[in-house]
Amino acid sequence: MVRGRFITLEGGEGAGKSTQAGRLVAALAAEGIPMLRTREPGGAPGAEAIRSVLLGQGPWDGVAECMLHFAARREHVERTIRPALETGTWVVSDRFADSTLAYQCFGQGVPRRVFDALAALALEGLRPDLTLVLEIDPEAGLARAAARGDANRYEAMDTDFHARVRDGFRAIAAAEPDRCLLLDATGTPEGVAGAILKAVRARLLP
Amino acid sequence: MVRGRFITLEGGEGAGKSTQAGRLVAALAAEGIPMLRTREPGGAPGAEAIRSVLLGQGPWDGVAECMLHFAARREHVERTIRPALETGTWVVSDRFADSTLAYQCFGQGVPRRVFDALAALALEGLRPDLTLVLEIDPEAGLARAAARGDANRYEAMDTDFHARVRDGFRAIAAAEPDRCLLLDATGTPEGVAGAILKAVRARLLP
Ligand SMILES: Nc1ncnc2c1ncn2[C@@H]1O[C@H](COP(=O)(O)OP(=O)(O)OP(=O)(O)O)[C@@H](O)[C@H]1O
Ligand SMILES: Nc1ncnc2c1ncn2[C@@H]1O[C@H](COP(=O)(O)OP(=O)(O)OP(=O)(O)O)[C@@H](O)[C@H]1O
Ligand SMILES: [Mg+2]
Ligand SMILES: [Mg+2]
Repeated sequence: MVRGRFITLEGGEGAGKSTQAGRLVAALAAEGIPMLRTREPGGAPGAEAIRSVLLGQGPWDGVAECMLHFAARREHVERTIRPALETGTWVVSDRFADSTLAYQCFGQGVPRRVFDALAALALEGLRPDLTLVLEIDPEAGLARAAARGDANRYEAMDTDFHARVRDGFRAIAAAEPDRCLLLDATGTPEGVAGAILKAVRARLLP
Repeated sequence: MVRGRFITLEGGEGAGKSTQAGRLVAALAAEGIPMLRTREPGGAPGAEAIRSVLLGQGPWDGVAECMLHFAARREHVERTIRPALETGTWVVSDRFADSTLAYQCFGQGVPRRVFDALAALALEGLRPDLTLVLEIDPEAGLARAAARGDANRYEAMDTDFHARVRDGFRAIAAAEPDRCLLLDATGTPEGVAGAILKAVRARLLP
């Protein structure tokens, strides 16, 4: 059994991660690839319970918030992602570890070593095969998300915070070019989906 | 302002931690010491929310469970314990980090290095001034707890688990004799309270 591929979608509020996750899964499933679409925080029963606490309460101490995200991620990885990949299913996750690095470390100032230590404990080497970082101006992304009308605690944070998150995602993409691809997310949904599919074909399909 | 002292009560189910926490706080408060009684998991609003998820769901992956305990502990330490100690209040906590080491590492087999890494991130050197480890035969402790009638997920675990937890607490007390005192918890509540007060006087009072 060939292991499935693990693809993550990252980016700020309203960049189009959920929209593109749906399109990508549909496109690859249409080619006969077994696909699993999932999201973070969440993607497993315990992880969804942690998501409710994480988003429903707060503000959290930054270290505690990182630990909650990685506790949810560990459940997600062990119960959902790894089992799927092992049976040959491809997994598309709407956010993954890079969101914690961008939001909590770049955005909120939690030291990078906290992220690194938790990632080592929770992931034990699991790394996405491809990470699509959708880039959009924070104001434009927040306007899209606001139009959708289900604001959460992170969306409510100030402009500087969202600018630091955007810079964080850029830095992450620049630091790991073999894994990450920074994509302009301001085009039409069809246009962005085309760019994503092109990258997946170039990097992951034979 | 002299920093307050930090005392933790540890031990298996039904050992008498909650009973003795109440007695110790009352006895020291009667001597004019400002006292704060708290408990884990919990002791701060976010930590109590995590407690509900931790005890209400499961079974958890062991690493995820440790991360949840330490996320709750971080909130507890930052919002409740440290502020109290800094204003000269003494803190008595019904369970603390040793419970995670005994239950998750000794009991459930989570590697010790997971505990050590999380403790370093969450506690940043905070260490109890005195830890009272109440020792009782697991069967006797579980019978006491059952008579109280509010069984939780840990109490429902098998005999071998509880024996490993008891051995874990013994090992912890033996490894740090300057911090820990192992006490026979089979006596009367008054007798155990007397032994605890004697230890507190000998180790913490001038
Ligand atoms: N390329 C696009 N052009 C215009 N609008 C878009 C585009 N992609 C998505 N949208 C719309 O913008 C809103 C946000 O998109 P989506 O929910 O996919 O973003 P997201 O990155 O998942 O946001 P969040 O971070 O809040 O989960 C939705 O209403 C969606 O229909
Ligand atoms: N020394 C004692 N002798 C007899 N019964 C006791 C003694 N100490 C406590 N008990 C009773 O045993 C039960 C368990 O005690 P307690 O709730 O204090 O234990 P605990 O260590 O806090 O338990 P848990 O781990 O479940 O929180 C209670 O009903 C309490 O009244
Ligand atoms: Mg989304
Ligand atoms: Mg108790």
